[in-house]
Amino acid sequence: MDSVLRQSKAMCPFLKSASPATLRAMSTVARPKASPLGGTMSKLQLYAHRCPVMGKAMAVQSSKYGAAAGIRAFSAQTKTTTGKARLHTSRNQEARAVESPILEGRKNAPPPPPGVAARKDAPPVAATPTVFSSTGKFSYEDFYQSELDKKHKDKSYRYFNNINRLAKEFPVAHMASKEDKVTVWCANDYLGMGGNQHVLNTMHEALEKYGAGAGGTRNISGHNKHAVELEQTLAKLHATESALVFSSCYVANDATLATLGSKLPDCVILSDSLNHASMIQGIRHSGTKKIVFKHNDIADLEAKLASLPLHVPKIIAFESVYSMCGSIGPIEEICNLAEKYGALTFLDEVHAVGMYGPTGAGVAEHLDWEAHANGRPRGTIMDRIDIFTGTLAKAYGCVGGYIAGSAKFVDMIRSLAPGFIFTSTLPPATMAGARASIEYQMAYDGDRRLQQLHTRAVKEELNARDIPVIPNPSHIIPILVGNAGLAKAASDLLLQDYKIYVQAINYPTVPVGQERLRVTPTPGHNKELREKLVTALDEIWTRLDIKRTSQWAAEGGFIGVGEPDNVQEPLWTDKLLGIEQATQEAKAAGVPENGITEALLAREENNVNRVMDVSA
Amino acid sequence: MDSVLRQSKAMCPFLKSASPATLRAMSTVARPKASPLGGTMSKLQLYAHRCPVMGKAMAVQSSKYGAAAGIRAFSAQTKTTTGKARLHTSRNQEARAVESPILEGRKNAPPPPPGVAARKDAPPVAATPTVFSSTGKFSYEDFYQSELDKKHKDKSYRYFNNINRLAKEFPVAHMASKEDKVTVWCANDYLGMGGNQHVLNTMHEALEKYGAGAGGTRNISGHNKHAVELEQTLAKLHATESALVFSSCYVANDATLATLGSKLPDCVILSDSLNHASMIQGIRHSGTKKIVFKHNDIADLEAKLASLPLHVPKIIAFESVYSMCGSIGPIEEICNLAEKYGALTFLDEVHAVGMYGPTGAGVAEHLDWEAHANGRPRGTIMDRIDIFTGTLAKAYGCVGGYIAGSAKFVDMIRSLAPGFIFTSTLPPATMAGARASIEYQMAYDGDRRLQQLHTRAVKEELNARDIPVIPNPSHIIPILVGNAGLAKAASDLLLQDYKIYVQAINYPTVPVGQERLRVTPTPGHNKELREKLVTALDEIWTRLDIKRTSQWAAEGGFIGVGEPDNVQEPLWTDKLLGIEQATQEAKAAGVPENGITEALLAREENNVNRVMDVSA
Repeated sequence: MDSVLRQSKAMCPFLKSASPATLRAMSTVARPKASPLGGTMSKLQLYAHRCPVMGKAMAVQSSKYGAAAGIRAFSAQTKTTTGKARLHTSRNQEARAVESPILEGRKNAPPPPPGVAARKDAPPVAATPTVFSSTGKFSYEDFYQSELDKKHKDKSYRYFNNINRLAKEFPVAHMASKEDKVTVWCANDYLGMGGNQHVLNTMHEALEKYGAGAGGTRNISGHNKHAVELEQTLAKLHATESALVFSSCYVANDATLATLGSKLPDCVILSDSLNHASMIQGIRHSGTKKIVFKHNDIADLEAKLASLPLHVPKIIAFESVYSMCGSIGPIEEICNLAEKYGALTFLDEVHAVGMYGPTGAGVAEHLDWEAHANGRPRGTIMDRIDIFTGTLAKAYGCVGGYIAGSAKFVDMIRSLAPGFIFTSTLPPATMAGARASIEYQMAYDGDRRLQQLHTRAVKEELNARDIPVIPNPSHIIPILVGNAGLAKAASDLLLQDYKIYVQAINYPTVPVGQERLRVTPTPGHNKELREKLVTALDEIWTRLDIKRTSQWAAEGGFIGVGEPDNVQEPLWTDKLLGIEQATQEAKAAGVPENGITEALLAREENNVNRVMDVSA
Repeated sequence: MDSVLRQSKAMCPFLKSASPATLRAMSTVARPKASPLGGTMSKLQLYAHRCPVMGKAMAVQSSKYGAAAGIRAFSAQTKTTTGKARLHTSRNQEARAVESPILEGRKNAPPPPPGVAARKDAPPVAATPTVFSSTGKFSYEDFYQSELDKKHKDKSYRYFNNINRLAKEFPVAHMASKEDKVTVWCANDYLGMGGNQHVLNTMHEALEKYGAGAGGTRNISGHNKHAVELEQTLAKLHATESALVFSSCYVANDATLATLGSKLPDCVILSDSLNHASMIQGIRHSGTKKIVFKHNDIADLEAKLASLPLHVPKIIAFESVYSMCGSIGPIEEICNLAEKYGALTFLDEVHAVGMYGPTGAGVAEHLDWEAHANGRPRGTIMDRIDIFTGTLAKAYGCVGGYIAGSAKFVDMIRSLAPGFIFTSTLPPATMAGARASIEYQMAYDGDRRLQQLHTRAVKEELNARDIPVIPNPSHIIPILVGNAGLAKAASDLLLQDYKIYVQAINYPTVPVGQERLRVTPTPGHNKELREKLVTALDEIWTRLDIKRTSQWAAEGGFIGVGEPDNVQEPLWTDKLLGIEQATQEAKAAGVPENGITEALLAREENNVNRVMDVSA
C-alpha cells in the first residue's frame, strides 16, 4: 500500500497537514460501533471511504488485490474487535422473553445495563467476512450468506414447521400433507377462539357483505363501522375512554412508545428487562433515554425512578404475563411507584387479554375480581393504568393489536403515529370477528376456566413425573431442557414419533442454557390428549437423557426448577376455579382428593359443550 | 433563582470548577435537537436534570413556583428556538407523497438535504406549552391536549369518514347509517378485488376450514401452507427466487430497510425525496447514512452515487408509482446507475402491483411487456431489480405486505427482522384470498385495462371542463385545489350534496399550497358514475370559486397544471389499450373519433361482466 499512501499524501490536503501522530491514532482506533455483525473500521479508513478521491483509489486498490485479500483484511480486523453476543438480561438466571437479533447488530446499539456483563455462555458470533467482488463492488449475496452462516453456527437459524390448524378438529392440525395430522400444543390461540363458530359466522357475514379488505388507510376510505365498533368494545373491555386498532400489537407497541417517547420532552422510558421485542424497538425508535430495570424488581425500579427529577415525563413499560417464562408483572406495586414519581404506566396485556379477569380484560382486571364482576372499575388497579396494549391474535383468535387509554392520549397517537397513519386498515371481517370474540369472552368465562384447569392438570402431571416445569402463576408451561440441541431433538421426536407439535424455544429467544419447550394448553386439550403429551415427554426425557426436576434440585435448582421454596400461587386461585368448594364437597361425599381436578374438569367440559351447541 | 444557584454552587463540584464563561455558554446555547414540538433546553438545564441532586432541587423549585410559572418559563424559551415546520421536498413544486408527522418532532431528526431551505409557506407550528401539575409532576393530559391543539391549528387534524364499502354494490358504500349510501372515488381497492366473488369464495372456504387466525408467529405454530403458497405465488409474480409476507407493506418496508441498513457495513441508503413514510422510517430505524435525491432526478442521484466509494454497500430506495402525484420512477435508468455504482435497487411497487404489466407484476414488468407476456423475464428491467416490495391491500383487495428477491436475501430478512419474527402470521383466509386475487390478476388483465380506460375518460372529461388535473402517466388522478380549507370544503360538499366520497389530501401529506382531491377510478366506475363525478366537481369548482386549469395557466402553471409542455404519455399506451387499432377501425367505419373511448369502454365492460359471470 506504500505507493497508494505516497500518492494520497501528494493529493490530499488533509493527509498533508495532519501530523504523523494524529494519523497513527486515527488508523489504530477502531470506530466505536461495537457491532458483533457489521465489522469495524479505523477512523482513517472511514474518512477515506467518504472522500471522493481516496474512496475511489481504495476501491481500485481492493479490486486489484481481488476479493480474497479484501476478505482477509476485513476478517483480521473484525476478529480483534467483535466479541461475544451481548445479552440484556439483568439477572443471569432469567429468561430473555424475546431478544431482537437486529438489536445486537445495530451500529448504535446501547450498552448493556450498568453492572451487567456479557454472559459467558453465549455462543460466540463469527466475524463478518465482508466481501468485494472482482469489480470492486460490494458483493451482497456473499454478505447475506455470511449472515445466514452465523445463524447456522450459533444454532439460532429457524426452520419453520408447516402447521395447518383445523378449526373443526381443534387442537389438531395437518402438516404439509393433509393426511399427516398432529396435535398442536404450542399455539397462542389459547382459547380456541380461532375456530369458534360464532366468530366464524360473524366473519363470513362481514366478508360477504363488506368484502376482503378495507380498501385504504383509516384516513382515506378505510375507516368504517367495524373499526368504530371494535374500538368501542376495546375501550369498554379496559374501562378506558378510548381505544385504537393497529395491524398488530407489534406495531401498536412500536408506534406508541416511539411516538410518546419522541414527543414528551426529555422523556425517560423505564423498561422491564424481559420486555417484548416490540417494546424494545419502540423505545429505541423513540430516540429517548431508556433505563432497563430488573425483571419484576420493584426495588430496582424505585431506585431508578428516584434518580430522576420528579417533573420529567417518564413511562414505565412492562407486561402482565411474560410469554416465555409465564411470570406476572407486579402491576399494583408499579402503579404505586408511578403515582409517587409521576410516571405513566404502559402495560402490555398481550398474553393476558381473554385469559384473566371476570370479563377477560387481563391481569389488571383479574386483581380486583369482585369490583369488576360488579361493574365498578373506578379506583381499581386497572383504573390506575394509563395505557394498555393488547392483541386480537392470541386468546381472541384473530389478528391485529390495539392500545387503550384516555381519549386525548389515543387521539394524539391516532394523529401522530406513522405506523398507524400510513398503513391499511384491517379487513372488516377481521375486525368484526375480533369484536365478536371479545364480546363472547366478556359474557362467558368457561373457556378460560377450562384452560386454567387443563394448565393445572398438565403442570401437576409433569411434576408427578419429575419433568421440570419452570414455576409461574400463569397459563404458560415452560419445560426446561437447558440445551439447544436437546430442545430441538425433543421437539422433533415429539412431532415425528408422537404427532405432537411443541416448538423448541432456543437462543436468542431465551438465553443459552435455558432452552425449553413452551406448552400452552387450551380448553380443547382434554384428558386423552394431556395423557398422550405427558407420556410422550416422559419417554423422550428418558430417551434423550434430559435432566429431570430432581436432578436440577440436586444441583441446587435453576431458574425456579428444583427450588422447593419457589412455590407460586396461581392467578386463577383454587377459590376462583371452584376447587376450594369442590374439595369440601368431595370430602363430605368421601371422594378421594386426587380425583377432584378431574371431576371438576369433566363438569367444565360439559358446560363448554353445552355452550358450544347453543352458539353453533 | 439566586438562592438555588448559590446553594447549587456550594454542593456541586462541577459548578464550582467550571468558569463563568463556560456556564454562560452552556446556559444560552440550546440543545441541538431542533424539535418543533418537543421544545428545547439549555445544555446546563439538561445536565442539571440528569443530576440526582440538582434534578430534585429543580423539581422542588418548579413545584414551589407552581404550574403556571413552569409553563411561562418553558414557553418563553421554546418561542425563541422553535421555528416553522421543515419540509423535506427537494423541489419546491413537488408534492410530498407522505410526510411523517413524527419525523418532524424527532429529537434526532436529520437536517434537510443540503441546499434545501425550509419552505416559507408552511404553517408555523406553535410552541409546546410543557405543563407541570401543582404536584410538580408532568401533566400528561395537558401535553396531549397541546399536541392536538397544534394539529387543529395547522389544519392537519384528521376527521375520519365512516365508509362501509359494499362488496355487492361496488363502488358504493354506506355511511354510519345503512341507508346513507355514497359512491367511493378514493379507495385503493383499485380493481375491486375486495369484492371479487372468486376471492371471497376462497376466503370463506379457508376461514371455515382453518379458522379466524393463524395462532402464532411464523416460528411458533403460525407457519402454514397458506403462507408457503402465497410466497411461492409472489416469487413467481416478480420472477424472483423467493418472497416473504409481512403484516403490511409498511412493516415490510420498515423492517427490510432497517435490517439491511443496519447489517450491511457502512451502508448508505439513497432515498427518493417523495418516498413513502414506511421507507423513511425504515431508513431512520437502520441508523445508517441516508442521502435524499431529488424526486425522479437521475442526474442528482448519479452525482450522489459518484460521491461514494465504489465498494461501499448502497441501497437506492424508490417507488414505481408515487401515490399522491401519480408520477412514475425511472426504473431502467436507476438500474443502470445501480449497476455502475454497485448499489442494490429497492423498488416499492405498492401502488403498481396488479395494475401494470401483462401479469400485473407492476411497472417494472410493464416496461418489458412483450418479454414478460412470453414468459421470458431474464435480462429484463424487472430481472435487474434486487428487492421488490408490494402490498396485498390495494389492487389485490386484501391486507398484508411482502418483499421479493433472491433466496439468500429473503432468508436473511426472515432470520433477522424483528418486525417479521415477533409478530403473528396473517390469518389463513387472508393469505388464501390474497393468493387467489394475485393469480386471478396474473391470468386476466381485463380489470386493469378497464381501470385505465376509466382513468383516461375521467382525466379527459376533467380537462374538457377546465378542472386542474396534475399530469402524470399513471392511474392516479390528483385534482389540484391549492388550499386546505377549500379542499376540505370541496370534499365535504361532494359527500353531503352529491353522495360522492373523495378524501381531501392536505398538509402534511402534501405541501401547503398543493392541497388536492385524489381520485382513483376502478373498473366499477361506469359512465353514469363518471358523469356524476365530473358534473359535481364542475359545480363545486364554481360554487367555491376554485382555480381552474386556465387560471393556473394564466399564472404560468403550477406543478404541471396549466403547463402546456407537460404532456405525459400514459404507461398504458394507446397501443396497449387497443386504442390505436380501434381508432383505425373506427375511421374506416366512419365513427366519430370522440366516440372511440366510449365504444372501447362498452366493449371492455361487457368482457368484464362475462368473466365475472364465469367466475361467480
